[in-house]
Amino acid sequence: MSSTTIPRRDVTDRDVQIDILFCGVCHSDLHQVRDEWSEFMPTVYPCVPGHEIIGRVSAVGPGVTRFKLGDTVGVGCLVGSDHSCPACKGGMEQFCSNVTFTYNSPDKHGTAPVTYGGYSERIVVEEGMVLRIPPNLDLAGAAPLLCAGITTYSPLKRRGVGPGKKVGIVGLGGLGHMGVKLAHAMGAHVVVFSTSPGKRDDALRLGADEVVISKNADEMAAHAGSFDMILDCVSAEHDINAYLNLLKLDGNLTLVGAPEKPLPVAAFALIFGNKSFSGSAIGGIDQTQEMLDFCGQHNITADVEVIKASEINTAYERLLRGDVKYRFSIDMASLRG
Amino acid sequence: MSSTTIPRRDVTDRDVQIDILFCGVCHSDLHQVRDEWSEFMPTVYPCVPGHEIIGRVSAVGPGVTRFKLGDTVGVGCLVGSDHSCPACKGGMEQFCSNVTFTYNSPDKHGTAPVTYGGYSERIVVEEGMVLRIPPNLDLAGAAPLLCAGITTYSPLKRRGVGPGKKVGIVGLGGLGHMGVKLAHAMGAHVVVFSTSPGKRDDALRLGADEVVISKNADEMAAHAGSFDMILDCVSAEHDINAYLNLLKLDGNLTLVGAPEKPLPVAAFALIFGNKSFSGSAIGGIDQTQEMLDFCGQHNITADVEVIKASEINTAYERLLRGDVKYRFSIDMASLRG
Repeated sequence: MSSTTIPRRDVTDRDVQIDILFCGVCHSDLHQVRDEWSEFMPTVYPCVPGHEIIGRVSAVGPGVTRFKLGDTVGVGCLVGSDHSCPACKGGMEQFCSNVTFTYNSPDKHGTAPVTYGGYSERIVVEEGMVLRIPPNLDLAGAAPLLCAGITTYSPLKRRGVGPGKKVGIVGLGGLGHMGVKLAHAMGAHVVVFSTSPGKRDDALRLGADEVVISKNADEMAAHAGSFDMILDCVSAEHDINAYLNLLKLDGNLTLVGAPEKPLPVAAFALIFGNKSFSGSAIGGIDQTQEMLDFCGQHNITADVEVIKASEINTAYERLLRGDVKYRFSIDMASLRG
Repeated sequence: MSSTTIPRRDVTDRDVQIDILFCGVCHSDLHQVRDEWSEFMPTVYPCVPGHEIIGRVSAVGPGVTRFKLGDTVGVGCLVGSDHSCPACKGGMEQFCSNVTFTYNSPDKHGTAPVTYGGYSERIVVEEGMVLRIPPNLDLAGAAPLLCAGITTYSPLKRRGVGPGKKVGIVGLGGLGHMGVKLAHAMGAHVVVFSTSPGKRDDALRLGADEVVISKNADEMAAHAGSFDMILDCVSAEHDINAYLNLLKLDGNLTLVGAPEKPLPVAAFALIFGNKSFSGSAIGGIDQTQEMLDFCGQHNITADVEVIKASEINTAYERLLRGDVKYRFSIDMASLRG
């Protein structure tokens, strides 16, 4: 990855121009840059990734009512939708058939072949897709809320996670560590499943009540039939049925990681206990704002390692090895400097 | 399979003795008789299957309040539970850890090593597990409601199937044909998926609004993203992802068939659209009564082929070939005669 100059459109009536302060580094960025999703979302080069954007408003169009110069704002995975389809009306703009993703999506404004994301100095986004950032949040750590935060918040909310509920978080990475913080703040009893005994202390520090080493069959068996919900944040191949067995009657396992190969699911693991196995993808704009407000109330941000823009290639290599606690956040001042 | 003499316990305080009139032939009977579930439910021989029982009360214990001599009653898959665990309190006696299944379950009364089911002249069952049969229902056709009926009714109700909902039924066999009748009576738009073009007319007669031949990719594609719920009644290997793709946002596919091998599920098929894949097993006692009352109101019974007890081995062979429309129901008078 190297630096280049990209165009940004002039601010139109309802646009907000944002000077980017921090941008989180999501595993999706790496997939897109390497064209690993070529089947359904081929990469158009040059590709500017980044959809965990925090910045300051530096210009607004005359029709903008909700933001003013100097406001701290965020932009997540979406910069446009048709606002009229059933998905949009249902608050699920991420599934709008006319959605514009923050990067590598056809640019409807015609400024460039595709949209360019947050690994950049500045971005122009329609007001309706811009989010308010609570003033108490650390900005470098707030950036990952825009993807990792909403990706984990949305399924936890959908399944009614709160006091009296026992919630499992599988995999303690960028997504998983947010899942732990959020489920803990919601008041649930949180159990982290990890293959690495070395992550035990960190899991407890992040808010877990218990840690289970998933390779230990006895530890797993002790939790059989006890979870209301399990949030599965693992993108590698793993045994889903082992986790389905840990669910209570009517329990749900939601997958937010995206393993490449199909996962074998045993019919009996679902049938005995009326269990369900779901997927979930980010969240709509209103729910993303709700999540940010929730994080403001509970002072939740991601644990980040702040890097310079010039360090991105090393960061990608470390991301591939799982060597980050728990998200990289690019300080965009380093791009200007 | 051959005839033998089995003991039935004397009627105790809260027991109901039932002279069996009809007993449906469920695929589970065949699995159990052939010891195909040896891993988790090994068969104890002699095995008397049958859990779709319709009969007439021929004796009641002194403590019985809800039934009297001559009442038409039903018994399904369960004849006992502890009535005190979370499953029982939640109306899901089928998942009680002390459940007594109608056959091949340890007999807590000590009359026999295991319980003996409905392929018999008479059965003694505790009052709490006995169901009222609406007087208007054909008795031979009502028998399969006790398993095939509740197995399909329960997930349809759980997912709020009713007017304005589009529901798919995969596989038109014993379960599927009940799913069609019930979903139609609930007011949904019902689409049957079948591999056999020959079942089209029958599906429409049973209440389907549309029939899709699942081997036809164009027909399948025309329904992409349009279903609120799909009830999957297939026990053979099949492509679950093809059906997940037909679900709307937040849509659910519930499996009630039990394929032997794990089903490969593509993560993206669930994640894009926040979809879920569930399992469901029969239903609790209260919901089974609710289903029977619903069937009474809508005059719904299974389409059955009435057989003599002596024809059971031929019926099993035909069942294995899928050669039955849509359930065998044994006339128990043939056992006495």
